[in-house]
Amino acid sequence: MFYHIKELQYNARPDRPDPVYAKKLQEILGGQYGEMSVMIQYLFQGWNCRGEKKYRDMLLDIGTEEIAHVEMLATMIAQLLDGAPVEEQEAAAKDPIILAAMGGMNPQHAIVGGLGARPDDSQGYPWNARYTIASGNMLADFRANLNAETQGRLQAVRLYEMTDDPGVRDMLSFLIARDHMHQLQWIAAISELEEKEGLVVPSTFNQQYEKQEVSHSFMNFSKGTESAEGKWASGATPDGKAQFEYIENPEAMGQIPELAPAPTHMHGTPPPGKLPPKNL
Amino acid sequence: MFYHIKELQYNARPDRPDPVYAKKLQEILGGQYGEMSVMIQYLFQGWNCRGEKKYRDMLLDIGTEEIAHVEMLATMIAQLLDGAPVEEQEAAAKDPIILAAMGGMNPQHAIVGGLGARPDDSQGYPWNARYTIASGNMLADFRANLNAETQGRLQAVRLYEMTDDPGVRDMLSFLIARDHMHQLQWIAAISELEEKEGLVVPSTFNQQYEKQEVSHSFMNFSKGTESAEGKWASGATPDGKAQFEYIENPEAMGQIPELAPAPTHMHGTPPPGKLPPKNL
Amino acid sequence: MFYHIKELQYNARPDRPDPVYAKKLQEILGGQYGEMSVMIQYLFQGWNCRGEKKYRDMLLDIGTEEIAHVEMLATMIAQLLDGAPVEEQEAAAKDPIILAAMGGMNPQHAIVGGLGARPDDSQGYPWNARYTIASGNMLADFRANLNAETQGRLQAVRLYEMTDDPGVRDMLSFLIARDHMHQLQWIAAISELEEKEGLVVPSTFNQQYEKQEVSHSFMNFSKGTESAEGKWASGATPDGKAQFEYIENPEAMGQIPELAPAPTHMHGTPPPGKLPPKNL
Amino acid sequence: MFYHIKELQYNARPDRPDPVYAKKLQEILGGQYGEMSVMIQYLFQGWNCRGEKKYRDMLLDIGTEEIAHVEMLATMIAQLLDGAPVEEQEAAAKDPIILAAMGGMNPQHAIVGGLGARPDDSQGYPWNARYTIASGNMLADFRANLNAETQGRLQAVRLYEMTDDPGVRDMLSFLIARDHMHQLQWIAAISELEEKEGLVVPSTFNQQYEKQEVSHSFMNFSKGTESAEGKWASGATPDGKAQFEYIENPEAMGQIPELAPAPTHMHGTPPPGKLPPKNL
Amino acid sequence: MFYHIKELQYNARPDRPDPVYAKKLQEILGGQYGEMSVMIQYLFQGWNCRGEKKYRDMLLDIGTEEIAHVEMLATMIAQLLDGAPVEEQEAAAKDPIILAAMGGMNPQHAIVGGLGARPDDSQGYPWNARYTIASGNMLADFRANLNAETQGRLQAVRLYEMTDDPGVRDMLSFLIARDHMHQLQWIAAISELEEKEGLVVPSTFNQQYEKQEVSHSFMNFSKGTESAEGKWASGATPDGKAQFEYIENPEAMGQIPELAPAPTHMHGTPPPGKLPPKNL
Amino acid sequence: MFYHIKELQYNARPDRPDPVYAKKLQEILGGQYGEMSVMIQYLFQGWNCRGEKKYRDMLLDIGTEEIAHVEMLATMIAQLLDGAPVEEQEAAAKDPIILAAMGGMNPQHAIVGGLGARPDDSQGYPWNARYTIASGNMLADFRANLNAETQGRLQAVRLYEMTDDPGVRDMLSFLIARDHMHQLQWIAAISELEEKEGLVVPSTFNQQYEKQEVSHSFMNFSKGTESAEGKWASGATPDGKAQFEYIENPEAMGQIPELAPAPTHMHGTPPPGKLPPKNL
Repeated sequence: MFYHIKELQYNARPDRPDPVYAKKLQEILGGQYGEMSVMIQYLFQGWNCRGEKKYRDMLLDIGTEEIAHVEMLATMIAQLLDGAPVEEQEAAAKDPIILAAMGGMNPQHAIVGGLGARPDDSQGYPWNARYTIASGNMLADFRANLNAETQGRLQAVRLYEMTDDPGVRDMLSFLIARDHMHQLQWIAAISELEEKEGLVVPSTFNQQYEKQEVSHSFMNFSKGTESAEGKWASGATPDGKAQFEYIENPEAMGQIPELAPAPTHMHGTPPPGKLPPKNL
Repeated sequence: MFYHIKELQYNARPDRPDPVYAKKLQEILGGQYGEMSVMIQYLFQGWNCRGEKKYRDMLLDIGTEEIAHVEMLATMIAQLLDGAPVEEQEAAAKDPIILAAMGGMNPQHAIVGGLGARPDDSQGYPWNARYTIASGNMLADFRANLNAETQGRLQAVRLYEMTDDPGVRDMLSFLIARDHMHQLQWIAAISELEEKEGLVVPSTFNQQYEKQEVSHSFMNFSKGTESAEGKWASGATPDGKAQFEYIENPEAMGQIPELAPAPTHMHGTPPPGKLPPKNL
Repeated sequence: MFYHIKELQYNARPDRPDPVYAKKLQEILGGQYGEMSVMIQYLFQGWNCRGEKKYRDMLLDIGTEEIAHVEMLATMIAQLLDGAPVEEQEAAAKDPIILAAMGGMNPQHAIVGGLGARPDDSQGYPWNARYTIASGNMLADFRANLNAETQGRLQAVRLYEMTDDPGVRDMLSFLIARDHMHQLQWIAAISELEEKEGLVVPSTFNQQYEKQEVSHSFMNFSKGTESAEGKWASGATPDGKAQFEYIENPEAMGQIPELAPAPTHMHGTPPPGKLPPKNL
Repeated sequence: MFYHIKELQYNARPDRPDPVYAKKLQEILGGQYGEMSVMIQYLFQGWNCRGEKKYRDMLLDIGTEEIAHVEMLATMIAQLLDGAPVEEQEAAAKDPIILAAMGGMNPQHAIVGGLGARPDDSQGYPWNARYTIASGNMLADFRANLNAETQGRLQAVRLYEMTDDPGVRDMLSFLIARDHMHQLQWIAAISELEEKEGLVVPSTFNQQYEKQEVSHSFMNFSKGTESAEGKWASGATPDGKAQFEYIENPEAMGQIPELAPAPTHMHGTPPPGKLPPKNL
Repeated sequence: MFYHIKELQYNARPDRPDPVYAKKLQEILGGQYGEMSVMIQYLFQGWNCRGEKKYRDMLLDIGTEEIAHVEMLATMIAQLLDGAPVEEQEAAAKDPIILAAMGGMNPQHAIVGGLGARPDDSQGYPWNARYTIASGNMLADFRANLNAETQGRLQAVRLYEMTDDPGVRDMLSFLIARDHMHQLQWIAAISELEEKEGLVVPSTFNQQYEKQEVSHSFMNFSKGTESAEGKWASGATPDGKAQFEYIENPEAMGQIPELAPAPTHMHGTPPPGKLPPKNL
Repeated sequence: MFYHIKELQYNARPDRPDPVYAKKLQEILGGQYGEMSVMIQYLFQGWNCRGEKKYRDMLLDIGTEEIAHVEMLATMIAQLLDGAPVEEQEAAAKDPIILAAMGGMNPQHAIVGGLGARPDDSQGYPWNARYTIASGNMLADFRANLNAETQGRLQAVRLYEMTDDPGVRDMLSFLIARDHMHQLQWIAAISELEEKEGLVVPSTFNQQYEKQEVSHSFMNFSKGTESAEGKWASGATPDGKAQFEYIENPEAMGQIPELAPAPTHMHGTPPPGKLPPKNL
């Protein structure tokens, strides 16, 4: 169960309206790697957690924090929309600065939202649940979480560079710091699990059942071997259990597919030689 | 530019048809973490790569391999659909085994696909490009890639457990081994970049501009402190630069939001006291 | 079955082209609360209607009218796109007014639609059927319809404020009037059913089977009790059957969840103490 | 900002696993009218609220409660999935009861979620933000909310009828009671606003600007006049300001559309008589 | 403007309920190539039509007919759902035939639709407007229409094979005949335009501006030349203007891409040699 | 299996950056009729092909070429984004030309993609698999392919008109020529199959089972008979087997639908006369 308090986790107050920037800021609210994504992802991982209690508690703590981040962003966006040019004005239609602002706005901010934030990304595409994952395997999911915080901080930093509004930057400096923490947090949690389980997920699958001769081979599917120059192509594997192998000219190991004809009631293309019963 | 050869990368031949399993197998073809996702993700990361040539080449090598994985899965699914019960048959309607098979099938496999694979997941939801990311920051993207291979191998292993068809298992044993390799590959590539750049992405953002007092704090947004028990809540941070701090009772640091009324031409709720001009 | 006549229900003729406004106007054609939504919603409610004939007939009458509204909007948009700046022109590239117009247009209006309307919203997001509902319970659905006409008129009014084109405003004045009528219509239809059935939908569920002690309680999940000041928090309930109760400090009534570990073939996180069979 | 407590708002404990029912129950978690929809809708309405404080507080109180409802449903679904038949078992393949259970399950519950709930509906379609509305006009939005609680309770009642598991029914009896309360709450809040503003939203639009001669007319777009029999077709309008009028044979009031040819650089169909410059 | 009449265009009456078949039949109502698709596609092509009046009239005639087809399918599906097993019944839970029926149903038919048709496909995926095209070029669009009627009739025929219900087959025999007509209709309309404009769309683009040396070449991007055996690889082109050429070993004609580094404020991967300003 | 070579199929080098045009060019990369669509469509048609080997080989040859087209477009877009105005700059904020460029850009090109191409269309809507079809009937699918190449070339030509950048036009001249070839190719392949099978797909359905009296009738669902003037309304049908018939006043041939009431556990609207058991 949840409680709300009226104060924001951190200040969200722009120095001046900026409806064009409001459109951009939607990306880290309702985009693929926005705060809604981590909020839903952490909450579902917590609710579905079948592991130790400390994991469930931790996931729900951080998921609960993310709701507060969505709240901060929504509040900021609503204020950036104050003073948006959303009324017919003869003068405006001739001022290219206002015109550009109108063209750069998200029209739904006015028409649909009445100058409010929306659970969408910077293109107006609605947030959807396929952005998230809760797999029941915590090492798998913590890697998803590290990825989300990494992309999320990258986007927040880019948005920081796109404004000079001190109030917006102040709020972003907080979110960027939290993403910093959350990256470190997932790295720590991952290392705790990798120490127990090893690096390859899922650790519980008996590796004798996989085709082990290709478990450490980098396959070069192109002319030229620049791809041989990285740590992924030679030397010890990160788990220290094998050596990477570089296969310069990987050969096909499978059959040439030949599919059986479909049964007649499927009405696919008739096999050659078989006249279609055109007017039977 | 690309070339095709007719042989599959590895065999894809089931021992017997199984249209219910065909539906499930779609998950790792066209699902959120299916082969289409890694194929498109690696190709776009490669095409957009502004870094060293070895990264571009490596990304396109592995992206090219993933097209072959999609090909293997599509071929397998088409064969699993041979013999699907897709015709009206009086007898069938009374055989609960056939009935269950019909109910468990993806109806589009017959009606739309004519017994062919589809670029969809196990629920018939179409693959879409928001499953993928190419951010221009390779450390960020390699973490996304590690996540994708981790979830992908987990799903392939689960599908392995759900069948005893030796031909299907043989193909999966190959894909599982390649996902094994690809997890190790991304871990190696990540460590190469982390050694140069440090752990926190993006490394190029001047950390003086973030709210550094919350960059290492775990905040406990619940009653009870089970979440304090992990490596993420105390001790040195993974980059060795600081100590994690556990904040048992995090306080709000922000304002209570108060938004200005919307301008009248937005036709929001009229402010209290202001009578609406009902019939002006 | 349906017939078409060539005249529009009402005039749809702009005084001048305005491709930027054409983009905005798409919202009430193909948006969440656009005319396509009410058209499909009313038609499906009518076709699925298992109630009295007058409801089916009324739903299909109004659904049929909405097709004509989509027709008017599409016709208007096509004309607003006449004269759109969609050709490479050296001069244009230096005129900020033309530039802004190009930036504010929906690029698909030209590239995909050849200067025609599209079944999309003002962000270019395609209309989809999850915007609509036909539940088989008419009181439920008439509330959905009242909601749709309410949001729809609000958006049409906002669009009215965003233009001074007399032809566009003339058409909108008609649509706004019809939305006015349709709000009143659904309010009348709702009151007819509420008189028979009561206020709470579905009326046919035996209320003894619900947890009646929480059927009239407003729960305050925050510090501060501003939420106690409305008609929803005290006094008689609208059906006159009870008094609202304000619970200032709602307590949890449920268990602390503890989920069983997943079976091993699910390959979730191994329970603590259980070493993963890394290389069995 | 938000806090979490570990207890559920109400019990969520099934008496026995039922993976087929788990699939169905997803509808009120992540469907169009599921708990995620009201959670996001109320939170965004609250965060965007530019009206009196009591509305903001009330919206955030109820939005916060809905997070707890999502939590209860997720917890219930995870437990219903305990014991799901997700492993290859020779015996199972011949037992039609188990087969039917496998066919009736959501395959992603096992393959993707590892026996956890998903933010999707009963068809596996992901929740998305276009299910929600926050328009900045509270009367409009409260009608949306009443609609959501109405459809939501209807669906919960149907799901109640589809199970005899006492634990599941106990949880549903709580959710059904809360939906009961929430219907009454929105009706009360709506009446409070309608008393001030009148019935037609937005109340602030000057009705002189709408085509008032069609503001009270029901138009019969079909042969037969069953649609004349309801309260929407004759008598006083609900606001007492006019009489409904029934137009048995509504006439078109608009032009026959004729669009100008597209400019040549649009490459539409060439006008008749104009030879295409096939090989110029 | 449109009118409705109460009779269906053709009978839609099943001999017996069949909720599992109802799910399948949704494909040609709300699927990618269902009747909703052609209805919206033809209507928008008609409304956007800038060509001769006969085209506009024809498009709107056939679009209007398609609304009647949606109506027939919706009516049929509602009747197929009569008697669906949607109530908890102890006995049912042990009858594998009923169980299979429950598992094979679309759960939303009951929970959401109250035994009514839905604007979705056979997987419950909602119809969306990206299924349709109205390009402003009639020859282009008539090809889209021929495609739609072709896929549509194929799916209707497959559904015909999947049932033996005489009432369902009677309705399908009508729809199949209309799809027959509509295929012929578009072929006729296409040939009328091709005679005037030629085969290659758009006909109005000056072919001197295209890279004409590759305008008639089939490129073989694989080992093996089976692809040389068709009419597309040698002989005269269908417009009689050239000969097809078969290029057995197509060579790359373009550059090896090298992208410039991103500007620093994009925070991509730092170029090699450039130390990231980790703690500047 | 596939191989990659580092050279592009054709040059993709703009003369100057143009981020606004980059947004538009996305349409033919990731739009409904972009290169991703034909790539996935041809590959799946090839992989699912149950017909003669020459068809499979041909489909995979052309599908493989399309991957190279996606590659060219992605490379072009990344270069058009060089020099995009994505940094806060005081001066810029006052220059309407720069402002317009910022407003006309796709914000995700910077925030999410770090100046890289995205698998989306010109509105930022993600590519999805429902754009494609592989039906198992080759004549059906070749018509889909002709449609795709037709719309694709039309869009490429429109984009050609919207730029004067010689490098962009050079690349487009290549893609336009390939679309030219691919239209001719599908026309040739279609005629090869039509000669064998006849015009109406599927050819294998016994036409005695369709309602043959409406197989050649154009039905005029409007006042006015302009639609009688085309080749589709009179004269011989294209297959020479019949004459088109023009039905000026088509009559309904079906029943007036009447649906049975829903069972009580569905909680639809109670039938008239039946009092709802409000408080039983």
